[in-house]
Amino acid sequence: MLIAEPLQKAIDELSKLPSIGKKTAQRLAIHILKDDKESVESLINSLRDLKEKIKLCNECFNIATEDKCDVCKSNKRDRSIICVVEDPSDVISIEKTNEYNGLYHVLGGVLNPLAGVTVEKLKIKELLERVKNEEVKEIILALNPDAEGDATSLYLTKILKEAHIKVTRIARGLPIGGDLEFADSATIGRAFIGRIEL
Amino acid sequence: MLIAEPLQKAIDELSKLPSIGKKTAQRLAIHILKDDKESVESLINSLRDLKEKIKLCNECFNIATEDKCDVCKSNKRDRSIICVVEDPSDVISIEKTNEYNGLYHVLGGVLNPLAGVTVEKLKIKELLERVKNEEVKEIILALNPDAEGDATSLYLTKILKEAHIKVTRIARGLPIGGDLEFADSATIGRAFIGRIEL
Repeated sequence: MLIAEPLQKAIDELSKLPSIGKKTAQRLAIHILKDDKESVESLINSLRDLKEKIKLCNECFNIATEDKCDVCKSNKRDRSIICVVEDPSDVISIEKTNEYNGLYHVLGGVLNPLAGVTVEKLKIKELLERVKNEEVKEIILALNPDAEGDATSLYLTKILKEAHIKVTRIARGLPIGGDLEFADSATIGRAFIGRIEL
Repeated sequence: MLIAEPLQKAIDELSKLPSIGKKTAQRLAIHILKDDKESVESLINSLRDLKEKIKLCNECFNIATEDKCDVCKSNKRDRSIICVVEDPSDVISIEKTNEYNGLYHVLGGVLNPLAGVTVEKLKIKELLERVKNEEVKEIILALNPDAEGDATSLYLTKILKEAHIKVTRIARGLPIGGDLEFADSATIGRAFIGRIEL
């Protein structure tokens, strides 16, 4: 017996999502099949709204429901600092900390020439425009501490330095609650290099 | 900053799905946001079709696109054996083995009085009807080997024995490719009890 066609189609579509394999997709599809009609309608509508109502802020490319995002619209934010991140989800993570009160700039990815992500595909030109036009005093790079993130940070540092702007990078070291015994040596090494005087 | 409302709504809806937590829901929502419009439409349509085109077979309650499912419609299946399973996904798992050629009966759950799943909520009455009406010679119980599955198997064995029908249960023991050293003692114990003469 083959799996009924609409079910197979739903499994195929769900398994295209990140971190959803064939088995999870099947479980999700069967769950949706058994779920009541209202819940499924509610899920479908939320996905449609997500695509139709959300656009990107025309200043920082964070997600927004209007032309500008909530951060760019706010008059309580420090407009002299811009934090550069890869994705809108990074903005959410940073906002949750309540430690940062500046603006953002969402690149929309990191440099990865092998996957076809070149300088032109990212919002780097727009970042340079913002640096020129605005009262910006500091750019904080908050990209992921991996090969692509580091390469992108290096590239941005180079071109921003040419524009005579202060560039900083968020600290690397042991995560809070982490354990020296279980930390990898690259992390411990970075923690030593980045040590601060007390 | 709060997360933009349509995004928050989508995250909430996605995290209602089984095995999807808040973090995964956020990653999926951001992915859908960045995905092209066609892919998202395709996903939404597949979920809608899943709900609208799929119904339950009126004989065995397996998923079907017509009144009867592909297994019940087939004239190649052995109609004297019925395999009782919890969910339509179990039918898919068993069909994949190519080891079984009888019919199915999907209970739609297992007995779990604390969660409100009583005998009346499962397709047990319908199973007894099938046993009475048809040329059924054997009922194979293929429920999960856990507390609820075992309780349901026990209950079904009792009432099916009263109807004078042969009842069997699929074997329990070491999984193929498993390792005695890493198997839990309950599984090893069951493997000893269920040993067969060679």
